[in-house]
Amino acid sequence: MKGPRSLFSVLTLLALAICCKHPDKSARRSWPDLVPGRLNAAFLIMDGVYNTELTAPMDIFHHTRFRDSIRAMNVFTVAGTRQPVRSFEGLQILPDFGYLEDSLPPIDILVVPSAEHHLDSDLQDAAMIAWVRRTAQQARIVMSLCDGAFVLATAGMPDSLRCTTFPDDIGRLREMFPALRVLENISFVHDGRYITSAGGDRSFDAALYLCQHLYGKKVADQLAHGLVIGWDLDSVPHWKPGD
Amino acid sequence: MKGPRSLFSVLTLLALAICCKHPDKSARRSWPDLVPGRLNAAFLIMDGVYNTELTAPMDIFHHTRFRDSIRAMNVFTVAGTRQPVRSFEGLQILPDFGYLEDSLPPIDILVVPSAEHHLDSDLQDAAMIAWVRRTAQQARIVMSLCDGAFVLATAGMPDSLRCTTFPDDIGRLREMFPALRVLENISFVHDGRYITSAGGDRSFDAALYLCQHLYGKKVADQLAHGLVIGWDLDSVPHWKPGD
Repeated sequence: MKGPRSLFSVLTLLALAICCKHPDKSARRSWPDLVPGRLNAAFLIMDGVYNTELTAPMDIFHHTRFRDSIRAMNVFTVAGTRQPVRSFEGLQILPDFGYLEDSLPPIDILVVPSAEHHLDSDLQDAAMIAWVRRTAQQARIVMSLCDGAFVLATAGMPDSLRCTTFPDDIGRLREMFPALRVLENISFVHDGRYITSAGGDRSFDAALYLCQHLYGKKVADQLAHGLVIGWDLDSVPHWKPGD
Repeated sequence: MKGPRSLFSVLTLLALAICCKHPDKSARRSWPDLVPGRLNAAFLIMDGVYNTELTAPMDIFHHTRFRDSIRAMNVFTVAGTRQPVRSFEGLQILPDFGYLEDSLPPIDILVVPSAEHHLDSDLQDAAMIAWVRRTAQQARIVMSLCDGAFVLATAGMPDSLRCTTFPDDIGRLREMFPALRVLENISFVHDGRYITSAGGDRSFDAALYLCQHLYGKKVADQLAHGLVIGWDLDSVPHWKPGD
């Protein structure tokens, strides 16, 4: 009976091998479509990520591919796992990459949207914080929206950096990281390689600003038009190098 | 060898039964958490759905559950399949329900975000259009963002209804549906049970307006504050009953 049992064992293992692959893994094989030569913008997601702080910058950055004569962006999501992540508002999202299991493409722009536990338990996630620290050290631009600033600060955002966060959490950021220069009543702050945003609907401002910084006002205006935004940097409270 | 072969066959089938269940199905068993007595807001998604037109109203509606003394909303996504849907910007989303395979909860508010092919191939999706028609007939409020208006019009939005869509597609909506009264240079239009929005970042206006309509200005102001929006209906170009 050895032969047949082995045969069925092989069939069993084959069935498992075929059926146990996760849809997220199979989806990942064909996605994201990373076009060589583009800037890679990675969005860190986890359970409790806030929809708007993820999608506002993701939309602006993704739409750069429809603008001519610029080095556009590839956008993709990264999480600790490639199992489905559930956003704060209940959207079930399949991450494109898992930083604990995949070899990731080089990341030019690291985006940390806010998540429900960015003021508490997420800051205890040593693997996540270590990944953010390593990635931020190599990225050209590091961006946080809303309370993503707490993750960046925990992961070693430079002392004395000017930054901001969700308006109601300004005081908490100052308490937890007294060396930071936390600005308030402001949409976003660009200091060094870091862009921090108040988040929420203001997340569009920070994303459009970065595109204007990288590609010029005409491209930023076109990206804003696509999202029915009347974009005027001068009317947005912000701090940037030279201010 | 019948016995052992049957045993291994059973083991094989058991392994398949355990491993072949889709994460989206398993996720659906525990999600969404539909709290009885709330208004059910369903968001129709499909490949090519635009992130912001989905997440802006989803966020405003979801956050109603944190406001006291109102009949808050349950939010969930519905698609033709419970397999992963890929948004226009590349977000991989697991729908909460599939209208072809699930019995859906009663839908009080139907939201049709825009998607890449809402001016062409999506309008040929007979099953989707039929589901929208049936659902819209029973819903208390039917909302479209951006080009979702083309889906609502194809699914039988009443003739002579005032409505709007993405600014660049106003002319096309008028050509395709000449009986509609398409308003331009406007953020949203509320006529009868229908609220249609220009979409993009303006999608927040339509969602906040509906919350102000249902719950009053104080609640709308609180929801806007959570998304760092300075909300003032009077400063938003719109048309509503009585205007």
